Amino acid sequence: MIQSLGIRGAPAIGVAGAYAAVLAVREAASLSENEARITFLETALEEIASSRPTAINLRWAIERMRALWARRGTLSELEARWQAESELIHLEDRRANERMAGFGAEIIPPGAALTYCNTGGLATSGKGTALGVLEEGFRQKKISHVYACETRPVLQGLRLTAWELSALGIPYTILCDNAAASFLARGEIKSVWVGADRIARNGDVANKIGTYGLAVLARHHGVPFYVAAPSTSVDLATTSGKDIPIEERPAEEVTALLGESEFRPQVANPAFDVTPAELVTAWICERGVFQTAQRLAAALLDNPLSSLV
Amino acid sequence: MIQSLGIRGAPAIGVAGAYAAVLAVREAASLSENEARITFLETALEEIASSRPTAINLRWAIERMRALWARRGTLSELEARWQAESELIHLEDRRANERMAGFGAEIIPPGAALTYCNTGGLATSGKGTALGVLEEGFRQKKISHVYACETRPVLQGLRLTAWELSALGIPYTILCDNAAASFLARGEIKSVWVGADRIARNGDVANKIGTYGLAVLARHHGVPFYVAAPSTSVDLATTSGKDIPIEERPAEEVTALLGESEFRPQVANPAFDVTPAELVTAWICERGVFQTAQRLAAALLDNPLSSLV
Repeated sequence: MIQSLGIRGAPAIGVAGAYAAVLAVREAASLSENEARITFLETALEEIASSRPTAINLRWAIERMRALWARRGTLSELEARWQAESELIHLEDRRANERMAGFGAEIIPPGAALTYCNTGGLATSGKGTALGVLEEGFRQKKISHVYACETRPVLQGLRLTAWELSALGIPYTILCDNAAASFLARGEIKSVWVGADRIARNGDVANKIGTYGLAVLARHHGVPFYVAAPSTSVDLATTSGKDIPIEERPAEEVTALLGESEFRPQVANPAFDVTPAELVTAWICERGVFQTAQRLAAALLDNPLSSLV
Repeated sequence: MIQSLGIRGAPAIGVAGAYAAVLAVREAASLSENEARITFLETALEEIASSRPTAINLRWAIERMRALWARRGTLSELEARWQAESELIHLEDRRANERMAGFGAEIIPPGAALTYCNTGGLATSGKGTALGVLEEGFRQKKISHVYACETRPVLQGLRLTAWELSALGIPYTILCDNAAASFLARGEIKSVWVGADRIARNGDVANKIGTYGLAVLARHHGVPFYVAAPSTSVDLATTSGKDIPIEERPAEEVTALLGESEFRPQVANPAFDVTPAELVTAWICERGVFQTAQRLAAALLDNPLSSLV
């Protein structure tokens, strides 16, 4: 489900990964040999953690599971602990969404905003990251209109964000990704909001392919570019964006549009790109608004444990 | 055919528009009243000229037809004159392609290049504009690889340019439009080549939606951005890009991908955008390479008549 994008969005796949571990421990209980159970669980955790390479939330959720496993005990004790931890991760994500939305809405420039990919309730456990900020900004009457890019090749913007904006009653317009530049040039869009699959220690942001281009365009037009993501998307162990693995996805995701045509062109389909920290105006997480990556990293180092619940 | 994009590409629709006038004069001959014939022809010419508003080649071709009509004569004489003029326009376009390709290949930076939309034999009468330059650059062993954007929503890059590059034996990779930025950041792409639907007197370029964004990205990465178009795409009567009408096309072109889903999102679908002259490194036409719009306009004013044939 995670690999085929049935569940997607960095925070949502973190939560789903945790629950997947619970399912794995239930399945392990059907094995009689202790060694076979351990092997099964280890394999399952590694499979879950590596099913999508770019988002850090998945690996981070599985690390939390692993830490609890190390304490030993029976399989049913482990299942209970993992179940509780999954619910905690789930709850933390929901609360992080709420807080992020509040912090983001405080700084959001009034007027129209542009967003990318899908960062709402369908990508998280709660109201979303970037889209949650826009929803709160709309509630506070700061946001008048949301432009969203369709986000090729999987069209998360056209399929999901459009539906969410429509359901929220927020006036919106979907653009082909290549139209963002000319809409930015019109001057109506006052800020750009995106989520993140992983944020490196230096503030570089890995996110859906096309995010980097938007960041360059925002800079060219003097429009602030904000990244909203829970602190669990920050990976202090990754020094810079250069160290973030970029998932290459099947060409068929791009060429499927050609239908039954026999000609299948050569395509590249990287699922993510890296936006250098220098193009980010601020990083917004459940801890607040950070104008520099140094401050964001320092805040996380000071208090690495989530204090949300 | 022109409106539904059965024939597309500014030079090709200019040629097609001329031949369409020949068909119209043949149809007019079936009317008995002279006044009815004139009304029919005037309506037909205006319909042809306005079937696509952005490309200037169409209006320009029809102006050439109109100028010959003003000389009077019988309908069959007019048909003969229009037929000859259409063939001349056709030939001129082919020769313009050849010369442009030669001029462009002289200045093309060695290595990989990026192109946009479709500017090859399927968009012109000959080898193309931007794609013709890349073909000639490849023949001269300057161009090693061509990246081409898929060009949403109609996918001229994925469907047409990919096929042409493949047929020409040029190593290529198709990218989703939103991936161009990260490929430019890699440093392998040494130049960007696009065509034009209309070039204003000040050098602003109306071309397929997404061209402007690419120009901004090229500038950010220090990569030269070249516009290859026949001088017939230059409209000295249009002062700047602000005066170029931008065709808004049906939302269905974008949302068709959603298949049978009942939800139909709000979309904007401008077919073109305007790239300001300051982002263009050089304009290449059949008269040569022009580093400034002033020199391009001066060359056309000095000798407004094509001297190709």
